[in-house]
Amino acid sequence: AKPKVGYFHAQDNSYLKEFDELYNKKVKEIKSAPVVIKEEENSIYDAIVTLFLEDVGSVFIIDSNEALVGVVSRKDLLKMTIGETNINQIPVSVAMTRMSHIITITDDDTVFEAAKKIIDYEIDVIPVVKKIKKDSKERLKVIGKVSKTNITRVFVDFRLDI
Amino acid sequence: AKPKVGYFHAQDNSYLKEFDELYNKKVKEIKSAPVVIKEEENSIYDAIVTLFLEDVGSVFIIDSNEALVGVVSRKDLLKMTIGETNINQIPVSVAMTRMSHIITITDDDTVFEAAKKIIDYEIDVIPVVKKIKKDSKERLKVIGKVSKTNITRVFVDFRLDI
Repeated sequence: AKPKVGYFHAQDNSYLKEFDELYNKKVKEIKSAPVVIKEEENSIYDAIVTLFLEDVGSVFIIDSNEALVGVVSRKDLLKMTIGETNINQIPVSVAMTRMSHIITITDDDTVFEAAKKIIDYEIDVIPVVKKIKKDSKERLKVIGKVSKTNITRVFVDFRLDI
Repeated sequence: AKPKVGYFHAQDNSYLKEFDELYNKKVKEIKSAPVVIKEEENSIYDAIVTLFLEDVGSVFIIDSNEALVGVVSRKDLLKMTIGETNINQIPVSVAMTRMSHIITITDDDTVFEAAKKIIDYEIDVIPVVKKIKKDSKERLKVIGKVSKTNITRVFVDFRLDI
Protein backbone atom coordinates (compact mmCIF):
# COMPACT_ATOMS: atom_id res chain seq x y z
CA ALA A 1 0.00 0.00 0.00
CA LYS A 2 1.68 3.15 -1.28
CA PRO A 3 1.11 6.38 0.64
CA LYS A 4 -1.14 8.84 -1.17
CA VAL A 5 -0.11 12.41 -0.49
CA GLY A 6 -1.81 15.27 -2.28
CA TYR A 7 -3.78 18.47 -2.21
CA PHE A 8 -7.04 18.53 -4.05
CA HIS A 9 -8.89 21.47 -5.49
CA ALA A 10 -12.42 21.85 -4.13
CA GLN A 11 -14.00 21.19 -7.54
CA ASP A 12 -12.11 17.99 -7.93
CA ASN A 13 -14.54 15.63 -6.17
CA SER A 14 -11.47 13.62 -5.19
CA TYR A 15 -10.33 10.51 -6.94
CA LEU A 16 -10.57 8.55 -3.73
CA LYS A 17 -14.28 9.15 -3.90
CA GLU A 18 -14.19 7.85 -7.45
CA PHE A 19 -12.72 4.62 -6.18
CA ASP A 20 -15.50 4.46 -3.62
CA GLU A 21 -17.99 4.72 -6.47
CA LEU A 22 -16.47 1.61 -7.97
CA TYR A 23 -15.80 -0.51 -4.91
CA ASN A 24 -18.56 0.63 -2.55
CA LYS A 25 -21.36 0.29 -5.06
CA LYS A 26 -24.10 -1.81 -3.43
CA VAL A 27 -24.88 -5.38 -4.37
CA LYS A 28 -28.50 -4.41 -5.04
CA GLU A 29 -27.33 -2.09 -7.82
CA ILE A 30 -25.50 -4.78 -9.76
CA LYS A 31 -27.13 -8.11 -8.88
CA SER A 32 -28.89 -10.31 -11.45
CA ALA A 33 -32.13 -12.24 -11.12
CA PRO A 34 -31.62 -15.74 -9.70
CA VAL A 35 -33.01 -18.84 -11.39
CA VAL A 36 -34.67 -21.09 -8.81
CA ILE A 37 -36.26 -24.56 -8.86
CA LYS A 38 -37.97 -26.55 -6.12
CA GLU A 39 -36.03 -29.26 -4.35
CA GLU A 40 -39.00 -31.65 -4.13
CA GLU A 41 -40.05 -31.81 -7.73
CA ASN A 42 -36.80 -31.66 -9.65
CA SER A 43 -34.29 -34.24 -10.86
CA ILE A 44 -30.72 -33.66 -11.95
CA TYR A 45 -31.94 -33.80 -15.53
CA ASP A 46 -34.51 -31.05 -14.76
CA ALA A 47 -31.75 -28.87 -13.32
CA ILE A 48 -29.68 -29.31 -16.49
CA VAL A 49 -32.63 -28.42 -18.70
CA THR A 50 -33.29 -25.30 -16.58
CA LEU A 51 -29.65 -24.32 -16.83
CA PHE A 52 -29.75 -24.45 -20.64
CA LEU A 53 -33.19 -22.89 -21.01
CA GLU A 54 -32.27 -19.95 -18.79
CA ASP A 55 -28.68 -19.83 -20.03
CA VAL A 56 -27.17 -19.55 -16.56
CA GLY A 57 -24.20 -21.18 -14.86
CA SER A 58 -25.95 -22.11 -11.61
CA VAL A 59 -29.46 -22.87 -10.41
CA PHE A 60 -30.65 -22.20 -6.84
CA ILE A 61 -32.73 -24.83 -5.06
CA ILE A 62 -35.57 -23.82 -2.73
CA ASP A 63 -37.88 -25.77 -0.40
CA SER A 64 -41.66 -25.60 -0.15
CA ASN A 65 -41.34 -22.49 2.08
CA GLU A 66 -39.33 -20.69 -0.63
CA ALA A 67 -36.26 -20.87 1.57
CA LEU A 68 -32.88 -21.39 -0.09
CA VAL A 69 -31.56 -24.91 0.51
CA GLY A 70 -28.84 -25.38 -2.11
CA VAL A 71 -27.17 -24.47 -5.38
CA VAL A 72 -26.05 -26.58 -8.36
CA SER A 73 -23.46 -25.47 -10.90
CA ARG A 74 -22.50 -26.74 -14.35
CA LYS A 75 -19.56 -28.44 -12.68
CA ASP A 76 -21.78 -30.30 -10.17
CA LEU A 77 -24.11 -31.41 -12.95
CA LEU A 78 -21.35 -32.45 -15.35
CA LYS A 79 -19.90 -34.63 -12.60
CA MET A 80 -23.28 -36.35 -12.19
CA THR A 81 -23.81 -36.95 -15.90
CA ILE A 82 -20.60 -38.92 -16.25
CA GLY A 83 -21.00 -40.87 -13.02
CA GLU A 84 -24.69 -41.71 -13.21
CA THR A 85 -26.81 -43.17 -15.96
CA ASN A 86 -30.27 -42.28 -14.73
CA ILE A 87 -30.14 -38.56 -14.07
CA ASN A 88 -33.87 -38.40 -14.68
CA GLN A 89 -34.55 -40.36 -11.52
CA ILE A 90 -32.00 -38.79 -9.19
CA PRO A 91 -33.24 -35.78 -7.17
CA VAL A 92 -31.34 -32.55 -7.73
CA SER A 93 -30.56 -32.47 -3.99
CA VAL A 94 -28.00 -35.25 -4.55
CA ALA A 95 -25.86 -32.97 -6.71
CA MET A 96 -26.33 -29.65 -4.93
CA THR A 97 -24.10 -27.81 -2.50
CA ARG A 98 -26.10 -27.48 0.72
CA MET A 99 -26.84 -24.35 2.74
CA SER A 100 -24.23 -25.04 5.42
CA HIS A 101 -21.55 -24.71 2.72
CA ILE A 102 -23.03 -21.76 0.86
CA ILE A 103 -21.57 -18.26 1.15
CA THR A 104 -24.22 -15.53 0.97
CA ILE A 105 -24.39 -11.75 0.71
CA THR A 106 -27.11 -9.14 1.19
CA ASP A 107 -28.38 -6.20 -0.88
CA ASP A 108 -26.44 -3.67 1.18
CA ASP A 109 -23.08 -5.37 0.99
CA THR A 110 -20.59 -3.77 -1.39
CA VAL A 111 -19.38 -4.97 -4.76
CA PHE A 112 -15.93 -5.27 -3.22
CA GLU A 113 -17.20 -7.60 -0.46
CA ALA A 114 -18.95 -9.76 -3.06
CA ALA A 115 -15.87 -9.95 -5.28
CA LYS A 116 -13.59 -10.73 -2.33
CA LYS A 117 -15.82 -13.63 -1.25
CA ILE A 118 -15.84 -14.99 -4.81
CA ILE A 119 -12.04 -15.01 -4.86
CA ASP A 120 -11.48 -16.14 -1.24
CA TYR A 121 -13.92 -19.05 -1.42
CA GLU A 122 -13.22 -19.89 -5.09
CA ILE A 123 -16.86 -19.78 -6.12
CA ASP A 124 -18.56 -18.66 -9.32
CA VAL A 125 -21.69 -17.13 -7.89
CA ILE A 126 -23.04 -15.85 -4.56
CA PRO A 127 -26.75 -15.79 -3.73
CA VAL A 128 -28.08 -12.47 -2.48
CA VAL A 129 -30.41 -13.32 0.40
CA LYS A 130 -32.82 -11.74 2.84
CA LYS A 131 -34.23 -13.15 6.06
CA ILE A 132 -37.78 -14.45 6.06
CA LYS A 133 -39.78 -15.92 8.93
CA LYS A 134 -41.84 -19.05 8.38
CA ASP A 135 -43.40 -20.97 11.28
CA SER A 136 -41.42 -18.75 13.66
CA LYS A 137 -38.18 -20.04 12.14
CA GLU A 138 -35.75 -17.74 10.39
CA ARG A 139 -34.83 -18.78 6.85
CA LEU A 140 -33.09 -17.17 3.90
CA LYS A 141 -34.82 -16.28 0.68
CA VAL A 142 -32.71 -15.79 -2.46
CA ILE A 143 -33.47 -12.43 -4.04
CA GLY A 144 -30.59 -12.19 -6.49
CA LYS A 145 -27.12 -13.37 -7.39
CA VAL A 146 -23.70 -11.88 -7.97
CA SER A 147 -21.32 -13.78 -10.22
CA LYS A 148 -17.93 -13.10 -11.78
CA THR A 149 -19.92 -11.87 -14.76
CA ASN A 150 -21.48 -9.10 -12.64
CA ILE A 151 -18.08 -8.11 -11.27
CA THR A 152 -16.51 -8.06 -14.73
CA ARG A 153 -19.40 -5.94 -16.01
CA VAL A 154 -19.01 -3.43 -13.16
CA PHE A 155 -15.30 -3.27 -13.93
CA VAL A 156 -15.94 -2.54 -17.63
CA ASP A 157 -18.86 -0.14 -17.16
CA PHE A 158 -17.01 1.97 -14.62
CA ARG A 159 -14.13 2.52 -17.04
CA LEU A 160 -16.48 3.40 -19.88
CA ASP A 161 -18.03 5.98 -17.57
CA ILE A 162 -14.91 7.89 -16.43
CA ALA B 1 -18.16 10.89 -18.49
CA LYS B 2 -17.91 13.54 -15.80
CA PRO B 3 -15.23 16.22 -16.22
CA LYS B 4 -12.31 15.79 -13.85
CA VAL B 5 -10.96 19.15 -12.74
CA GLY B 6 -8.27 19.37 -10.15
CA TYR B 7 -4.79 20.44 -9.16
CA PHE B 8 -2.48 17.78 -7.93
CA HIS B 9 0.50 18.12 -5.72
CA ALA B 10 3.66 16.83 -7.35
CA GLN B 11 4.01 14.00 -4.85
CA ASP B 12 0.48 12.85 -5.45
CA ASN B 13 1.11 10.60 -8.46
CA SER B 14 -2.44 11.46 -9.56
CA TYR B 15 -5.43 9.24 -9.09
CA LEU B 16 -6.01 9.16 -12.82
CA LYS B 17 -2.72 7.37 -13.05
CA GLU B 18 -4.01 5.01 -10.36
CA PHE B 19 -6.94 4.15 -12.58
CA ASP B 20 -4.48 3.47 -15.38
CA GLU B 21 -2.68 1.08 -13.07
CA LEU B 22 -5.91 -0.84 -12.75
CA TYR B 23 -7.25 -0.73 -16.27
CA ASN B 24 -4.06 -0.55 -18.33
CA LYS B 25 -2.34 -3.41 -16.57
CA LYS B 26 -1.12 -5.80 -19.28
CA VAL B 27 -2.68 -9.17 -19.96
CA LYS B 28 0.72 -10.84 -19.47
CA GLU B 29 0.75 -9.64 -15.84
CA ILE B 30 -2.55 -11.26 -14.93
CA LYS B 31 -3.04 -14.23 -17.27
CA SER B 32 -3.22 -17.84 -16.07
CA ALA B 33 -1.66 -20.95 -17.57
CA PRO B 34 -3.89 -22.57 -20.20
CA VAL B 35 -4.78 -26.26 -20.08
CA VAL B 36 -4.38 -27.79 -23.55
CA ILE B 37 -5.10 -31.19 -25.09
CA LYS B 38 -4.49 -32.53 -28.59
CA GLU B 39 -7.39 -32.64 -31.03
CA GLU B 40 -6.34 -35.96 -32.59
CA GLU B 41 -6.05 -38.13 -29.51
CA ASN B 42 -8.85 -36.91 -27.28
CA SER B 43 -12.51 -37.80 -26.88
CA ILE B 44 -15.22 -35.77 -25.17
CA TYR B 45 -14.77 -37.99 -22.15
CA ASP B 46 -11.03 -37.20 -22.10
CA ALA B 47 -11.81 -33.47 -22.16
CA ILE B 48 -14.17 -33.86 -19.19
CA VAL B 49 -11.55 -35.81 -17.23
CA THR B 50 -8.95 -33.11 -17.99
CA LEU B 51 -11.38 -30.42 -16.88
CA PHE B 52 -11.85 -32.09 -13.49
CA LEU B 53 -8.22 -33.10 -12.98
CA GLU B 54 -6.99 -29.58 -13.70
CA ASP B 55 -10.00 -27.94 -12.06
CA VAL B 56 -10.59 -25.48 -14.90
CA GLY B 57 -13.70 -24.27 -16.69
CA SER B 58 -12.38 -24.63 -20.24
CA VAL B 59 -9.83 -26.71 -22.11
CA PHE B 60 -8.01 -25.49 -25.23
CA ILE B 61 -7.59 -27.85 -28.17
CA ILE B 62 -4.42 -27.84 -30.26
CA ASP B 63 -3.37 -29.62 -33.46
CA SER B 64 -0.16 -31.58 -34.11
CA ASN B 65 1.66 -28.28 -34.86
CA GLU B 66 0.69 -26.94 -31.42
CA ALA B 67 -1.60 -24.41 -33.08
CA LEU B 68 -4.85 -23.52 -31.33
CA VAL B 69 -7.85 -25.03 -33.10
CA GLY B 70 -10.65 -24.84 -30.55
CA VAL B 71 -11.92 -24.54 -27.00
CA VAL B 72 -14.43 -26.58 -24.99
CA SER B 73 -16.24 -25.32 -21.91
CA ARG B 74 -18.19 -27.05 -19.13
CA LYS B 75 -21.32 -25.91 -20.94
CA ASP B 76 -20.27 -27.53 -24.26
CA LEU B 77 -19.39 -30.77 -22.48
CA LEU B 78 -22.53 -30.87 -20.36
CA LYS B 79 -24.58 -30.50 -23.55
CA MET B 80 -22.78 -33.51 -25.05
CA THR B 81 -23.20 -35.73 -21.98
CA ILE B 82 -26.97 -35.42 -22.00
CA GLY B 83 -27.33 -35.77 -25.78
CA GLU B 84 -24.85 -38.57 -26.42
CA THR B 85 -24.36 -41.92 -24.78
CA ASN B 86 -20.90 -42.78 -26.03
CA ILE B 87 -18.78 -39.78 -25.13
CA ASN B 88 -15.75 -42.06 -25.03
CA GLN B 89 -15.91 -42.58 -28.76
CA ILE B 90 -16.76 -39.07 -29.91
CA PRO B 91 -13.75 -36.83 -30.69
CA VAL B 92 -13.50 -33.65 -28.65
CA SER B 93 -13.59 -31.67 -31.91
CA VAL B 94 -17.33 -32.40 -32.17
CA ALA B 95 -18.04 -30.39 -29.01
CA MET B 96 -15.51 -27.59 -29.36
CA THR B 97 -15.95 -24.01 -30.54
CA ARG B 98 -13.70 -23.65 -33.59
CA MET B 99 -11.03 -21.02 -34.26
CA SER B 100 -13.19 -18.96 -36.61
CA HIS B 101 -15.51 -18.24 -33.68
CA ILE B 102 -12.86 -17.72 -31.01
CA ILE B 103 -12.02 -14.27 -29.69
CA THR B 104 -8.32 -13.91 -28.80
CA ILE B 105 -6.05 -11.41 -27.07
CA THR B 106 -2.28 -10.92 -26.81
CA ASP B 107 0.15 -10.38 -23.94
CA ASP B 108 0.32 -6.63 -24.52
CA ASP B 109 -3.40 -5.98 -24.58
CA THR B 110 -4.81 -4.37 -21.45
CA VAL B 111 -6.92 -5.91 -18.70
CA PHE B 112 -9.68 -3.51 -19.75
CA GLU B 113 -9.62 -4.78 -23.34
CA ALA B 114 -9.79 -8.38 -22.12
CA ALA B 115 -12.69 -7.63 -19.76
CA LYS B 116 -14.58 -5.71 -22.43
CA LYS B 117 -14.30 -8.61 -24.87
CA ILE B 118 -15.53 -11.02 -22.20
CA ILE B 119 -18.64 -8.86 -21.67
CA ASP B 120 -19.24 -7.90 -25.32
CA TYR B 121 -18.98 -11.45 -26.63
CA GLU B 122 -20.53 -13.11 -23.56
CA ILE B 123 -17.66 -15.55 -23.06
CA ASP B 124 -16.08 -17.02 -19.95
CA VAL B 125 -12.46 -17.15 -21.06
CA ILE B 126 -10.21 -15.67 -23.74
CA PRO B 127 -7.07 -17.43 -24.96
CA VAL B 128 -3.91 -15.32 -24.95
CA VAL B 129 -2.13 -16.11 -28.22
CA LYS B 130 1.05 -15.40 -30.11
CA LYS B 131 1.81 -15.93 -33.79
CA ILE B 132 3.92 -18.90 -34.79
CA LYS B 133 5.09 -19.94 -38.26
CA LYS B 134 4.84 -23.58 -39.28
CA ASP B 135 5.37 -24.71 -42.90
CA SER B 136 5.38 -21.03 -43.89
CA LYS B 137 1.81 -20.69 -42.59
CA GLU B 138 0.96 -18.36 -39.76
CA ARG B 139 -0.86 -19.99 -36.84
CA LEU B 140 -1.71 -19.02 -33.28
CA LYS B 141 -0.24 -20.65 -30.24
CA VAL B 142 -2.08 -20.35 -26.93
CA ILE B 143 0.26 -19.01 -24.24
CA GLY B 144 -2.28 -18.17 -21.54
CA LYS B 145 -5.87 -17.38 -20.74
CA VAL B 146 -7.84 -14.57 -19.16
CA SER B 147 -11.16 -15.48 -17.55
CA LYS B 148 -13.72 -13.68 -15.42
CA THR B 149 -11.80 -15.13 -12.48
CA ASN B 150 -8.66 -13.21 -13.49
CA ILE B 151 -10.65 -9.99 -13.89
CA THR B 152 -12.36 -10.45 -10.52
CA ARG B 153 -8.97 -11.11 -8.90
CA VAL B 154 -7.44 -7.96 -10.40
CA PHE B 155 -10.45 -6.01 -9.14
CA VAL B 156 -10.03 -7.35 -5.59
CA ASP B 157 -6.22 -7.16 -5.43
CA PHE B 158 -6.15 -3.56 -6.65
CA ARG B 159 -8.49 -2.49 -3.85
CA LEU B 160 -6.48 -4.34 -1.22
CA ASP B 161 -3.43 -2.45 -2.46
CA ILE B 162 -4.75 1.13 -2.26
